Amino acid sequence: MKIEAVDWFYLSMPEVQDIADGSQDALLVRVQAGGLEGWGECEAAPLVSIASWCCPMSHAACKPLRDSVLGQRIDDPADIARIGRLVREQSLDLLQTPHTLSGIDIALWDLLGRRLGEPVWRLLGYPRAHPKTPYAFSLFGDTPHETHAKALRVRTAGYRAAKFGWGPYGHGGAAEDAAHVRAAREGLGEDAALMVDAGTVWGDDPAPARERLAALREARVLWLEEPFVSGALEAYAALSREAAPVKLAGGEGCHSVHMARHLLNYGALGFVQIDAGRIGGITPAKAVADLAAARGVTYVNHTFTSHLALSASLQPYAGLAEHTLCEYPVEASPVAVAIAATPLRPDAQGYVHAPEGPGLGVTVHPARIRPYLVEAELRVGGHVLYRTPDL
Amino acid sequence: MKIEAVDWFYLSMPEVQDIADGSQDALLVRVQAGGLEGWGECEAAPLVSIASWCCPMSHAACKPLRDSVLGQRIDDPADIARIGRLVREQSLDLLQTPHTLSGIDIALWDLLGRRLGEPVWRLLGYPRAHPKTPYAFSLFGDTPHETHAKALRVRTAGYRAAKFGWGPYGHGGAAEDAAHVRAAREGLGEDAALMVDAGTVWGDDPAPARERLAALREARVLWLEEPFVSGALEAYAALSREAAPVKLAGGEGCHSVHMARHLLNYGALGFVQIDAGRIGGITPAKAVADLAAARGVTYVNHTFTSHLALSASLQPYAGLAEHTLCEYPVEASPVAVAIAATPLRPDAQGYVHAPEGPGLGVTVHPARIRPYLVEAELRVGGHVLYRTPDL
Repeated sequence: MKIEAVDWFYLSMPEVQDIADGSQDALLVRVQAGGLEGWGECEAAPLVSIASWCCPMSHAACKPLRDSVLGQRIDDPADIARIGRLVREQSLDLLQTPHTLSGIDIALWDLLGRRLGEPVWRLLGYPRAHPKTPYAFSLFGDTPHETHAKALRVRTAGYRAAKFGWGPYGHGGAAEDAAHVRAAREGLGEDAALMVDAGTVWGDDPAPARERLAALREARVLWLEEPFVSGALEAYAALSREAAPVKLAGGEGCHSVHMARHLLNYGALGFVQIDAGRIGGITPAKAVADLAAARGVTYVNHTFTSHLALSASLQPYAGLAEHTLCEYPVEASPVAVAIAATPLRPDAQGYVHAPEGPGLGVTVHPARIRPYLVEAELRVGGHVLYRTPDL
Repeated sequence: MKIEAVDWFYLSMPEVQDIADGSQDALLVRVQAGGLEGWGECEAAPLVSIASWCCPMSHAACKPLRDSVLGQRIDDPADIARIGRLVREQSLDLLQTPHTLSGIDIALWDLLGRRLGEPVWRLLGYPRAHPKTPYAFSLFGDTPHETHAKALRVRTAGYRAAKFGWGPYGHGGAAEDAAHVRAAREGLGEDAALMVDAGTVWGDDPAPARERLAALREARVLWLEEPFVSGALEAYAALSREAAPVKLAGGEGCHSVHMARHLLNYGALGFVQIDAGRIGGITPAKAVADLAAARGVTYVNHTFTSHLALSASLQPYAGLAEHTLCEYPVEASPVAVAIAATPLRPDAQGYVHAPEGPGLGVTVHPARIRPYLVEAELRVGGHVLYRTPDL
């Protein structure tokens, strides 16, 4: 097949609020080839990614992504890898590239799976997709009492794993943080997996993170997520040596396999969290999953938006039986909920599965997302480079 | 002063060719405050960077750069650092951010220098600006004979330092590459500094690079530049251990201080090459220069475009007397030449100096660049977010 058309759809809530909820807008991409279509989603600023698709060429290594995608052959997985390499080479100096490529790569896998009648995880070489345990994410409460109440609710909702983060954590003293972590453990009960997300609060300084380790150990916290910004490899390594049995987690900001590998090789992470909508798609995410499995590091998806994005983020590690946790979006905005007409609901035992259907196994209905479609237009030198296509 | 206006100007040659010349277009930014103006330049895809400036907010950590810049106070260098931190925090998930921030940071330093009547390097804490030796960059010839002729021309033009790269280097056998390097040394004469740029030809594989080391040593090559892609820290470290006295160079793709620090800490570079138009401006570039000086690594600018960009890239290490080499654009396109009405010409002894005038010490004349101005317009939901301003 030959890639005949690539169309971008910028979706948004009518009002985007200044809060940390990343599901308030979305950038979908539809790729058409051989009479079939595949859908992908970028976890990225929509207008900026659209500009990177269609902007004028600056030079041989700063081309719009369009130049490396349209008209390419797509018959097997090696073609997807080849297109990704070509994009990274020809758009090397265009910084937005990996975020935009992510949606394209995901759509190409979806398309190829539909063509071959196979789920993406099977095309990736996995004989079966193993069940994953979804974990709930909650903000810490304003007080330990409130955190305890939240944890109780998570337990009552039936979750066997929960992550608490942000809120007051790291902004007050170590004793206060310890009280929050203790409250979370008490509310969840002894059996649930408990994770803590520090939201990069300590920048690149291991000292305040160290003061929290005893309380994290005492509450049997599985991982401490993003104590530092993702470039602080030296701080990750220093803390990691002292944190056992608590492991460090990070990686959601990775936009290349290199960045993820550095977090393992130099930062000594125990859990690597990859968003297929940022790292460049399913192809590089699978490379990180292979690397993690080889190193004894546990792979986890990072997903905060739609179930199209969730399916894409599950594929790279669907076949890794030991990598059992899964970030599952529970409070996504209506626009994110609208994207997947066929959401990935937990089964009777509470497990989430990568779909068995062809491609990503998720149906996108134009009628469901049309109400959120944003009209956009990019013009250069009198020529229209992009105008929101019909849906 | 308060930042009152930030205007973006997309300049381009009438025809952009599919060649490695990165000076065929440019993105200039003019910042106005307190009745003064400062100019900066991004080494970035213009339309994509403009979109990152003015796009709608996606969420609290994915805002347009505009939200963190307009209306901010700018009275001293600490304000520039504060604005940069705010931009990186509020636009964390917008990948293009550092490329766009680069022009803003540069323009803010220019503006502040003009306000205080000081060159930027003095505001950075340097008592004086030391002369730099410009080096010429040439592509290797198609044959060693042609490389020899090119090196002779560089010598005749009076250069005391020269870099050869790309072309056939790394694409044939080690013997052929050795012949090219030998030819370059013979053409240049014994006294000139000779550098080799491999243009990331070996990806992340140290083996073929190793086979070239003997010839590089024999020709007394000062540095081997970018044998690998910039993420291949492990390969850099492996090669670095065996290459002495040849040192490794890289860093032009860095878009954060973290990336540059990793090249030093893990990649064991001997020379770090920073483009102030990519790393986020003069502020992070100066942090890398400090780090390099403390580690005994030599800082070099990366500049391929205008003399506005050249002045910006010289400021961060202007005061480091031991860091003597300077990349000097010799064959920039007419659009890049038009930007600086007052270019940085080498003195009678052939040295290049960071200007003594206030700010960047470079004058931008609207009349000179107006012929290259590109008309662009970005619309979302019926609103014009950007339209090329008057110049």
